Amino acid sequence: MQWYFVAALLTVLTSSQRLTVLGILTTLSQSNGKYEYDYATVPFLAEVFKLIVSSFLLWRERRISPSIRMTTDWRSVRLYPIPSVIYLIHNNVQFATLVYVDTSTYQILGNLKIVTTGILFRLFLRKKLSNLQWIAIVLLAVGTTTSQVKGCGEVSCDSLFSAPIQGYMLGILSACMSALAGVYTEFLMKKNNDSLYWQNSGKKKSVQWQSFYRFGVIFNVARLGFDDFRGEFENGPWWQRLFNGYSLTTCLVVLNLGSTGLLVSWLMKYADNIVKVYSTSMAMLLTMVLSVYLFTFKPTLQLFLGIIICMMSLHMYFAPPNMLIDLPLPVKATTESLKEVSVQQKSDS
Amino acid sequence: MQWYFVAALLTVLTSSQRLTVLGILTTLSQSNGKYEYDYATVPFLAEVFKLIVSSFLLWRERRISPSIRMTTDWRSVRLYPIPSVIYLIHNNVQFATLVYVDTSTYQILGNLKIVTTGILFRLFLRKKLSNLQWIAIVLLAVGTTTSQVKGCGEVSCDSLFSAPIQGYMLGILSACMSALAGVYTEFLMKKNNDSLYWQNSGKKKSVQWQSFYRFGVIFNVARLGFDDFRGEFENGPWWQRLFNGYSLTTCLVVLNLGSTGLLVSWLMKYADNIVKVYSTSMAMLLTMVLSVYLFTFKPTLQLFLGIIICMMSLHMYFAPPNMLIDLPLPVKATTESLKEVSVQQKSDS
Repeated sequence: MQWYFVAALLTVLTSSQRLTVLGILTTLSQSNGKYEYDYATVPFLAEVFKLIVSSFLLWRERRISPSIRMTTDWRSVRLYPIPSVIYLIHNNVQFATLVYVDTSTYQILGNLKIVTTGILFRLFLRKKLSNLQWIAIVLLAVGTTTSQVKGCGEVSCDSLFSAPIQGYMLGILSACMSALAGVYTEFLMKKNNDSLYWQNSGKKKSVQWQSFYRFGVIFNVARLGFDDFRGEFENGPWWQRLFNGYSLTTCLVVLNLGSTGLLVSWLMKYADNIVKVYSTSMAMLLTMVLSVYLFTFKPTLQLFLGIIICMMSLHMYFAPPNMLIDLPLPVKATTESLKEVSVQQKSDS
Repeated sequence: MQWYFVAALLTVLTSSQRLTVLGILTTLSQSNGKYEYDYATVPFLAEVFKLIVSSFLLWRERRISPSIRMTTDWRSVRLYPIPSVIYLIHNNVQFATLVYVDTSTYQILGNLKIVTTGILFRLFLRKKLSNLQWIAIVLLAVGTTTSQVKGCGEVSCDSLFSAPIQGYMLGILSACMSALAGVYTEFLMKKNNDSLYWQNSGKKKSVQWQSFYRFGVIFNVARLGFDDFRGEFENGPWWQRLFNGYSLTTCLVVLNLGSTGLLVSWLMKYADNIVKVYSTSMAMLLTMVLSVYLFTFKPTLQLFLGIIICMMSLHMYFAPPNMLIDLPLPVKATTESLKEVSVQQKSDS
């Protein structure tokens, strides 16, 4: 599979997920306003799904090549729960942020994640980005923000620049935490890339994934148990009401969440955080466009502008440089870069 | 003088001009709502100013090198009124557009001029633009549009996508006319660029400018006369009330208008239409930023986003390509990732 195919699939799945959530929320606001099922069971079951799939992949690989090495030493394994811990802190920072800012400001601040991901990607993973790629990343953040600008006739008007400074600081912290979790996951996923064994056979991916998801299941079990404890077990323990009120849609939501998780892991391994960020940003825009048709949302000028900006950004980031700067006579620099590329292509083939 | 210095000066003058107009309009809405002077005299006097300045420059040059050749043959001179004629048609198309669309939609459609200028610049002046420069031009248009998106709490809400199709067609036509006038002026200004005489001495510019402005004065006299004729001379002929109600501000407005005209001609000669478009777009943003301070306008998120987009666009268009794509080692990184993918493809298939 090519990374852009996986990225496109992730975009489609993520936006269908968001649309489902939107649909559910719309239905909720019309009905009694309560989920028929315990929503905390959905991520738990998604983690179980991911664990099952990755265990199956591991089993199949081991059958083919029994020599496969599994990372079991504590020094490697102890790193796997770290992203989950970061996400846990991130969740709490999110709640703290929402004390100071309203949801639409919060949504706008969320776009900072794109820029912080770029920065941490550069700092921790030591990936160099060209000037143009930095511009593209900033433009992606600007584009998604543009699409979210409140149009006229919408509520919560002048609250955007009027929140207390703590709100913005926490929003920035939240963006950093979220980016850090992503970058750390990529680090984990690529950590053993240098080993010859890995590079030659392309195996061991499911091994890593599996250890990763095992912690996901553990964390979610802990969360469900904690919820029960806080609710003083008045609904009984969580495993007794695991599938209560589950419909076909809910099962699809679980499968969707599990699949997007697997795709994200795949992208972290074979592509990088920036690809993931583009994928989810495109999913946001796709969701907004589809909402116009599905929920008869009003199309806004800012959505249209946001889409253009993000498309330009996508092109700028991923298009080969010689395609972007094909100036006919200008300067030597272009011919040099062209040479570089052609040499590089040769070495590839 | 360097072109970017002239462009910056044009930006400052244009925005001060717009601010003065805004200031006058604000005062008008507070007072009796009438100009104290005939507004049509302002562009006339500005044209006279331009003619005087360019005549002075011509006179000085002729004193230094009396051999200077002046274009007097009809075949060249007959081309000079063409931009004025195009602007005249453009004015009428503008009025026709405003029959169908409201002013804010009209303002938004006006940004199309940036893109049409790029297209006509490419088609008529045969200037090649790189892929990246096209992206930059589109982004400039998107950026200025973003800054103009109506925020919440503003009037004339859902009229943007609801105007009849004729309105949009006329808006596009208007953008094309305006771009055509600009491109044609550049063509005129650069027409004799090939002649060795011109290239060596840098003379003859004021000659061209002068013939250009002579038509400007004639057109404005015709307009004033026509206005008088339509008003049945009830205020007397225009030359009798030329300076009626003129204050220091009005004189500055005339000087400003004349100077910006001279600067635009200069840019058309030594730079190009795209530089002019960037200059006026930046002036629009500068005006909006200064309005926040001067008229206590509310700063909007979309203004902030628009400024970022336009700055990125500016950098992309004018920065040397090797500065934008200075990939230090990532060429290697790409080969690695490419290898990975190809290996993986093998294992997949």
